[in-house]
Amino acid sequence: MSETKALASYVVTSRLEDIPEDVRHEARRAIINYMGCAVGGSPHEAIDIAIRALGPYAGKPTASILGRAERLDPLHASLMNGISSHVNDYDDTTPKNYNHPSSPVASALFACASANHVRGRDFVQAFILGFEAESRVGNAVYPAHYDVGWHITGTAGVFGAAAAIGKLLGLSVQEMIWAIGLAATQAAGLREMFGSMAKSFHPGRSAQNGYVAALLAQAGFTAGEHGLEGPRGFAAVQASASDLSKITSRLGVDFDLRVNTYKPFPCGIVNHPTIDGAIQLHHEHRLDPASIAAVRLRVAPLVLDLCNQQNITRGLQGKFSVYHGAAVGLVRGKAGLQEYTDEAVNDPQVKRVREHATAVGDPSITEDQAHVEVELVDGRTIGRFVEASLGNLGRPMTDRQLEDKFREQAVLALPAAQVETLIELCWRIDELDDVNELVRVAVPAAARRRPPHM
Amino acid sequence: MSETKALASYVVTSRLEDIPEDVRHEARRAIINYMGCAVGGSPHEAIDIAIRALGPYAGKPTASILGRAERLDPLHASLMNGISSHVNDYDDTTPKNYNHPSSPVASALFACASANHVRGRDFVQAFILGFEAESRVGNAVYPAHYDVGWHITGTAGVFGAAAAIGKLLGLSVQEMIWAIGLAATQAAGLREMFGSMAKSFHPGRSAQNGYVAALLAQAGFTAGEHGLEGPRGFAAVQASASDLSKITSRLGVDFDLRVNTYKPFPCGIVNHPTIDGAIQLHHEHRLDPASIAAVRLRVAPLVLDLCNQQNITRGLQGKFSVYHGAAVGLVRGKAGLQEYTDEAVNDPQVKRVREHATAVGDPSITEDQAHVEVELVDGRTIGRFVEASLGNLGRPMTDRQLEDKFREQAVLALPAAQVETLIELCWRIDELDDVNELVRVAVPAAARRRPPHM
Repeated sequence: MSETKALASYVVTSRLEDIPEDVRHEARRAIINYMGCAVGGSPHEAIDIAIRALGPYAGKPTASILGRAERLDPLHASLMNGISSHVNDYDDTTPKNYNHPSSPVASALFACASANHVRGRDFVQAFILGFEAESRVGNAVYPAHYDVGWHITGTAGVFGAAAAIGKLLGLSVQEMIWAIGLAATQAAGLREMFGSMAKSFHPGRSAQNGYVAALLAQAGFTAGEHGLEGPRGFAAVQASASDLSKITSRLGVDFDLRVNTYKPFPCGIVNHPTIDGAIQLHHEHRLDPASIAAVRLRVAPLVLDLCNQQNITRGLQGKFSVYHGAAVGLVRGKAGLQEYTDEAVNDPQVKRVREHATAVGDPSITEDQAHVEVELVDGRTIGRFVEASLGNLGRPMTDRQLEDKFREQAVLALPAAQVETLIELCWRIDELDDVNELVRVAVPAAARRRPPHM
Repeated sequence: MSETKALASYVVTSRLEDIPEDVRHEARRAIINYMGCAVGGSPHEAIDIAIRALGPYAGKPTASILGRAERLDPLHASLMNGISSHVNDYDDTTPKNYNHPSSPVASALFACASANHVRGRDFVQAFILGFEAESRVGNAVYPAHYDVGWHITGTAGVFGAAAAIGKLLGLSVQEMIWAIGLAATQAAGLREMFGSMAKSFHPGRSAQNGYVAALLAQAGFTAGEHGLEGPRGFAAVQASASDLSKITSRLGVDFDLRVNTYKPFPCGIVNHPTIDGAIQLHHEHRLDPASIAAVRLRVAPLVLDLCNQQNITRGLQGKFSVYHGAAVGLVRGKAGLQEYTDEAVNDPQVKRVREHATAVGDPSITEDQAHVEVELVDGRTIGRFVEASLGNLGRPMTDRQLEDKFREQAVLALPAAQVETLIELCWRIDELDDVNELVRVAVPAAARRRPPHM
């Protein structure tokens, strides 16, 4: 059986009962983490701009945008949820393929559920299957696909959204095959966009495009039936090397939700060990920023491939600067959302330390590790080797830490009491008769601005 | 100056006065040919399905769909126009990159113009610049990009639509650079979809996505500024070899509209020489289908790469079968829209001849040429070598032939008198104060079905 058909059949026939409880708990953790990122990112100007530009073209306002008072049609709401949840680079990561898998899937599902009656257990099931489809497609083409410059969250994401929405719509196997084909033929997103708003556009657009793929397939819009494995299909065209068996091997047995990670810092995950080490040095030595003469980093080579920007002026660029990560860790002792604003990037103390930092790629250092060395103005040198950074698979964030991360973000858009209710509802999403019970708490009570359709 | 910036600057600053009259006439020919294809394709079930699936999600119905009574928002109308104009594989082709350049550009422009007051001269200018941007981006990555399996009409098309709509919106150079970046990061479309409805989805989606790119850029949504030439930009990621100088060389001097061609047959252009030869044999020998014992084709190797489907059952597959092209030419003496229906593909006489055909790729035969040999049941052999197929650059369709082609298609959706008015208005589109004068004639007077929003 072809990989496209095997994946379609699995998504169509899988039942929630067949999914182990530890995977279902990890799904809830992923949903909590996603929701915090979406609500916390929702005030970002990228969403203001996108709503201003596209709101006049949106359909009947039947769907909610997480964290916002405006309502749009479900397809445009998927796009906005995707931008919000990724714009702070704070969403989850599967380290084995550097994908951010929840955003495309959950962004489409929450938009769909906000406009329809969707039971919590059906939502969680569709989420798990969409996540798994997306991650496996990513695994099949990683690393060649990523290395050449594809933003895998955009390209693999559209498969996840198509599978998840297709599952909710109850597609047949034939329809799901078409949905996968229509996803494949929309797979896009370039790493060249990193450091601009277009990066967060990728999971948004993949959510929206996957949703469109499922709707078209349901209505009988035909597509090539070998979207994944065909000689001009996704894998052949978008990766110089691939292993399609990763799509079907141990399907229904292994779940990539088990190898998903959550970020303690809102930036490129490969910077995390450096930041972790810098924060430790700050606290341990009660560092005075003025005392720092030079910073020397030894990091995994991929870090410099992804995050080598040093001469920067914007918050979004800071997320792809390992030097900025080291600087805020050393200067401020933390790296939260406030350390990735335009203001923080231009903070003279941070800027000075960033500009006195150098980095060397060292193949003996893994992507979980970093060595941070600081030369002080008095001539002393202090250093820290980070063996496994917080949030990585070997040192996962606890449920409590995820809740704290959720609060830090959600209070930017919602009253504190509402945030607590939202956390509580996310933990028991699979028990809800209607996911709207939760969505209603994920939007502000009063309109902050006039919705485009009213 | 980077290629992205150079192209953006050219599109922003170019004036219609700077464009030679022969290019402007070729633009009118391309618009006539496009309009006939869009109106003629509009009754296809692919558009019925797409409107049924996505109409409920569309915005205020301010825009017309060419050939149809329903109205949608301009973005969804762009999508539908793109599907209609390509679904019969009858739209134009630039043979040097196998792109179908008008559909993505004109589909977005007509949707935009139907919802706004756009002067004819501004429309033609935006069309010429969008066509040129799209074709040059295609040239830069052809053939590696196409050979690996990208449907260049989808991938290059989004740049054309973004440039054309961006020109109408009056974007600044900075905004046009972002629009090109947002186009680059949406560039998609796989040749694996050939033979299904998803093929025509490509120019539709590229029209819609390019339009979105221009709207977002206008509102200040930022993108990477090296979308074309960056190390993880379009050319680097989507082609193993490219020549970016083709984007900027002799910009404003050479125009690819001068090397555009129009199809006399609604199928993959590489089949045309074979069909041309088969039709000639049919008429010259007054062939009785029952007299055909075997058919032997010698064709350019690319023909077998693209159109080697022999065991087919659907009209859309027939468009990618050189055997089917030979069969309808020999059996029916023509290859119009009626020869690419499901019925024609399953016609027993056509099927028998198709199944008795063989083809050999011969590198000494160019893509304009073909050799058709027929073995008759009485043992005789007849043959024809086609040196330059009708519609190719060496033997272009005349304005009158384009009008006849227009009529053949447009009468499928519009009354005959209206078709004549539409032809007349297309020839003088640049004189119109408001392109809506033309669009009103390109839709049926009475609603054939209830629009989704009423």
